[in-house]
Amino acid sequence: MKQDWKLKFAQNIRNYEGYSIGKLFKLLRDPDLISLAGGLPSPDIFLRDEMRLASQHCLDYEIEKIMQYSDITGETELIEAVIEFLKEDGITISEKNIVITTSGQQGLDLTGRLFLNPGDSLILDRPTFAGAIVAFQMQGPVFGGVKITQDGSDIEGIRHKIIDLKQQANMPKFIYVVPDFQNPSGITMSLQKRLALLELSYDYDIPIVEDSPYRDLRYYGESVPSLYSLDQKGNGANVIGLYTFSKLFCPGMRVGFNIGPEEVIAKMTNIKEGSTLNTPKYNQDICTAFLQAMDWQAHIQKCRLYYREKLEVFLSALEDYFPQETGVTWTKPHGGLFLWITLPQTMDTAELFYEAVKYNVAFVPGEVFYGENPEKNHMRVNFSYPSKDQLVEAVKRLSDCIRNRLNL
Amino acid sequence: MKQDWKLKFAQNIRNYEGYSIGKLFKLLRDPDLISLAGGLPSPDIFLRDEMRLASQHCLDYEIEKIMQYSDITGETELIEAVIEFLKEDGITISEKNIVITTSGQQGLDLTGRLFLNPGDSLILDRPTFAGAIVAFQMQGPVFGGVKITQDGSDIEGIRHKIIDLKQQANMPKFIYVVPDFQNPSGITMSLQKRLALLELSYDYDIPIVEDSPYRDLRYYGESVPSLYSLDQKGNGANVIGLYTFSKLFCPGMRVGFNIGPEEVIAKMTNIKEGSTLNTPKYNQDICTAFLQAMDWQAHIQKCRLYYREKLEVFLSALEDYFPQETGVTWTKPHGGLFLWITLPQTMDTAELFYEAVKYNVAFVPGEVFYGENPEKNHMRVNFSYPSKDQLVEAVKRLSDCIRNRLNL
Repeated sequence: MKQDWKLKFAQNIRNYEGYSIGKLFKLLRDPDLISLAGGLPSPDIFLRDEMRLASQHCLDYEIEKIMQYSDITGETELIEAVIEFLKEDGITISEKNIVITTSGQQGLDLTGRLFLNPGDSLILDRPTFAGAIVAFQMQGPVFGGVKITQDGSDIEGIRHKIIDLKQQANMPKFIYVVPDFQNPSGITMSLQKRLALLELSYDYDIPIVEDSPYRDLRYYGESVPSLYSLDQKGNGANVIGLYTFSKLFCPGMRVGFNIGPEEVIAKMTNIKEGSTLNTPKYNQDICTAFLQAMDWQAHIQKCRLYYREKLEVFLSALEDYFPQETGVTWTKPHGGLFLWITLPQTMDTAELFYEAVKYNVAFVPGEVFYGENPEKNHMRVNFSYPSKDQLVEAVKRLSDCIRNRLNL
Repeated sequence: MKQDWKLKFAQNIRNYEGYSIGKLFKLLRDPDLISLAGGLPSPDIFLRDEMRLASQHCLDYEIEKIMQYSDITGETELIEAVIEFLKEDGITISEKNIVITTSGQQGLDLTGRLFLNPGDSLILDRPTFAGAIVAFQMQGPVFGGVKITQDGSDIEGIRHKIIDLKQQANMPKFIYVVPDFQNPSGITMSLQKRLALLELSYDYDIPIVEDSPYRDLRYYGESVPSLYSLDQKGNGANVIGLYTFSKLFCPGMRVGFNIGPEEVIAKMTNIKEGSTLNTPKYNQDICTAFLQAMDWQAHIQKCRLYYREKLEVFLSALEDYFPQETGVTWTKPHGGLFLWITLPQTMDTAELFYEAVKYNVAFVPGEVFYGENPEKNHMRVNFSYPSKDQLVEAVKRLSDCIRNRLNL
């Protein structure tokens, strides 16, 4: 007798589909298609030779250890290197405030599992990172979304949302934000808003989860202090920081780290034990080499110049191909890998996606970036992976597709 | 204001402590101490040169791809190699029946998350693998434990437990077993019991989760067909198989695989997406090389001879140092890495552990291998990692410690 599997699955999982971007990607295998849908760093800036050297070092001197089980919390050398790395960004922590994760996605998953019972609420921007939504979704939470503005999260909107949820006896478990070059919008939160968000966090005793994958990829202007560092100057223990080596060094190692108050990190480490045990030492050691032997500052400087050029080409193509009559607008990020395009309200980018594929161009429909009640007329576009020529050609194709749809 | 973190944590997690073995290990750092507590394969049999060659190949030919994101399901080459590997063990599957996992522990976690709502029940042996218990525990389930017997799970006991739970309107979501050289007991399930367990699974429409980390490490006798292969000959879709490269090749890669019905694997892949994204391609490619370039059959043959010698030394030392008057008994496994020692009923091995550390020897107290109501007078001992001399010395120390406690 065949099992009726779906009925056996846990309720939160029964209709869970993971990352819907992934499924769209299967449509994008035509080599003539230019995809702005990915979030991939460019292999042009991968530190190949340095990666080879770091691997070789492990194989020469650590072979037995990289083949064995290792510590759940992470390798001491990597933890020490990360502590130094964060110090340069104004964050002072000890080894009790950090757990190495098997990717930034695991960092998010540990957060969701640590805090969320089914039905618990959390606060997040509208739109926000789809990977965070899919991680938290497995816990069956209530998403309290608040529309983001040009200078970051809408703090007063969040205050009202908290009051609303409090009245429903469902005080939010945490506030999730990506303050620097947010995925998908590219928006950066102003210093004033960071301070106001922290105040809000203290007022209502709600932790902030600060996701920082792109923080070092700034192409214009001055760095704004992280929420974590501002919290350390203030009340001191309300922020949990999520980091990854994916955008800094490369995604293939699947190594990241979470930082936060000792109790939080201890419990996240327990959850990591139960869900994956240790992060591979080999992969961690290569990330240690990135921070210690590869001159990461020079690498990041190179990435900044490389990606800024692409962003400039991309923004200029948008100006050329989307004149005002189209009603199309977009964000102008100061860093990161993405920008957010808004089409006239009548358009549905989930439908447009299939049309765009016919024009050999792709993006991510904006609806995946909402915890609930998605807006339909936005799209996320990536400018880090395609070449500059491809970026221009992609914008042209996108413009043809949209103008055709708008009968312009 | 400092957060009262514990109150904010999710209910299932608030008192969750992960793998309690891990915490004990921190007491075992004295170099004079001989630990029988671990579950580590011996580095003596690591394929170091082959590991170096496989890494080198990736660095020479796949550098860009191993540094980039990769497919969630797993690398096609590894999936194909695993399909061939399983074929030699009588299992025929297609690529839709397999997902590569970021370790066997993740395989367990995906299983728990897929099936278990808080309060849902599952069936497991008493004792059973502590790593499975800690993975499932995060979902807040009811453990329906049934005492294992010398030839494997107590099938009639399980039938009664199912009827009990059914009457409580809490039909078990699955039956978890480690049929080959079970961790911690070393017990192997007989063919007759495997067939009976499958019948039970069909009768009550309850899936079986077959965890097979040690299956190839058989030192005596003939291999018994896996539940998965027997199910394929019968009704065909009631078994989910969990595998890892940790004991076969090495634990450091953190690569495993789950096999099962297409719907189950698709949903597990979704959960994997939300919790870690892809398994690192570098680590997967090295495992592919293990199956394709490293003559794994010869390696396993070598492991068998190597570990059998250690098991023989260990069993003979137990005979020498625990005469009948001590009332101490132990299992005599045909494979795997562990055996299970039972002390007189009055003894509590969790207390004895600290005493044993004073004698410079360690084991895992048996209580961690029970989902509920732990028995106190057992211990798990590992014979794969210490040298033969250390094994004899460890048994001698253990005997001194226990005899002293028993006033013998």
